[in-house]
Amino acid sequence: MTTMHSFDAAIALQPLGEGRFAGATTPAYANMVGPFGGVTAATALNAVLQHPALLGEPVSLTVNYAAALADGPFEVIARAARTNRSTQHWVMEIVQAGGTVLTATAVTAARRETWSVDELAAPDMPTPDAVGKPNMVAMVEWVRRYDIRITEGAIPTAWDGSGDASRSTLWVRDEPARPLDFCSLAAMADVFYPRVWLRRATRVPAGTVSMTVYFHAGSTQLATVGTGWLKGQASAQAFRNGFFDQTAQVWSEAGQLLATTHQVVYFKE
Amino acid sequence: MTTMHSFDAAIALQPLGEGRFAGATTPAYANMVGPFGGVTAATALNAVLQHPALLGEPVSLTVNYAAALADGPFEVIARAARTNRSTQHWVMEIVQAGGTVLTATAVTAARRETWSVDELAAPDMPTPDAVGKPNMVAMVEWVRRYDIRITEGAIPTAWDGSGDASRSTLWVRDEPARPLDFCSLAAMADVFYPRVWLRRATRVPAGTVSMTVYFHAGSTQLATVGTGWLKGQASAQAFRNGFFDQTAQVWSEAGQLLATTHQVVYFKE
Repeated sequence: MTTMHSFDAAIALQPLGEGRFAGATTPAYANMVGPFGGVTAATALNAVLQHPALLGEPVSLTVNYAAALADGPFEVIARAARTNRSTQHWVMEIVQAGGTVLTATAVTAARRETWSVDELAAPDMPTPDAVGKPNMVAMVEWVRRYDIRITEGAIPTAWDGSGDASRSTLWVRDEPARPLDFCSLAAMADVFYPRVWLRRATRVPAGTVSMTVYFHAGSTQLATVGTGWLKGQASAQAFRNGFFDQTAQVWSEAGQLLATTHQVVYFKE
Repeated sequence: MTTMHSFDAAIALQPLGEGRFAGATTPAYANMVGPFGGVTAATALNAVLQHPALLGEPVSLTVNYAAALADGPFEVIARAARTNRSTQHWVMEIVQAGGTVLTATAVTAARRETWSVDELAAPDMPTPDAVGKPNMVAMVEWVRRYDIRITEGAIPTAWDGSGDASRSTLWVRDEPARPLDFCSLAAMADVFYPRVWLRRATRVPAGTVSMTVYFHAGSTQLATVGTGWLKGQASAQAFRNGFFDQTAQVWSEAGQLLATTHQVVYFKE
């Protein structure tokens, strides 16, 4: 008997035909309200990956969180809006109780060998062993599904308004270990806690509105990473009128840039 | 008699009812093949802004270029997938000759006063007057619709493979002058020429696959900028297997971060 990894259980979909899939939230990835947004993004991507008409592998994914997903079942709809010779354009939606809770788009493509270079180098960081153990405060359940070792820009322990920068660097991997794939990489693009907490040292309600992930690695490169550590870095560029952005990067331990990601986040006050 | 600005003519839409709008390409913004992608993005956004059900102002826009738009008429479809108390989620599509040529999503929201700060400062640059005149080589027609003064990272003049970085900084404004609004800001997010040309000093075919724009300014702030200069900065983070990304920022001359933007771009070889 094999036991399914909790991440696979969380993003599992049952095909209903014609690009429709049934899914359900799991307590293992619970957030403050509804599930961890990274898992919801991964679930939307999974519908594309499970679709019988799929061409190639993910290059780009954008998810827009339209409403809080309630605990329970939902339906994912994935439609290939355009199929070219080597690229394919997807439109996705998650529906729950008759309402749209997520809109999304993705681009998949057949990858080929070309001139390649990583321009942005991974930051220098103490090793995971040097950090010693998971150190991201688990205020919500999903944080326990990752081994996150923050090396710079931890969640403030004193909410005293003293923040002056929003950069965090960290190590991350699934807990327990799970071989990296597109869905888990998409989810890990969202493991950085709200930058506004760090920049202001003030804990205000915040929630991602839209997230985009660009995949710079193909399945062969992800397989090479396997269950290894990933290096992450995130920072905000602007906070204004109730929204801020986050730009982030995820590298393999060997220093290959696997994904770059951006999000815009609502915050209160 | 008043003459319409060529940008307004390029993004003009005729309502057809039920979220459908008729548009057409214009020679003024012609690219190598079809129109300048920035104008196509602005046109998709314009359908949202013209929609009678619109709530608030743009916060986020993602466009996916599914196929080359041919010169001629097209139809834009905009649908409010979810309307909340203060945010609204849009799904858009551009259709031409029965096929999908662009998929897109947007988030609009009612902005409110909050704690605000620009974390990423604008780069120091010589003034537009010091640069003297437009200096982006106009290999295609749309470039003449802007006054672009590159201050770092110009298009290489020798295609000798000598590149070693992908960062450009520049001044930009509409030519002739036009007061800034969300549509023109969305278009200007795409004025940076392909980073792969700079990084490799090699001119290869390249085209944007997906672009996201986060708007950090509301209409009041855009009105304050008016016809003033914008500062732009762009660089790539990774090039691999036929795709690279670009992260870019657009500030007002006064140094306010108006928009942050990202794109993933196809390149050949």
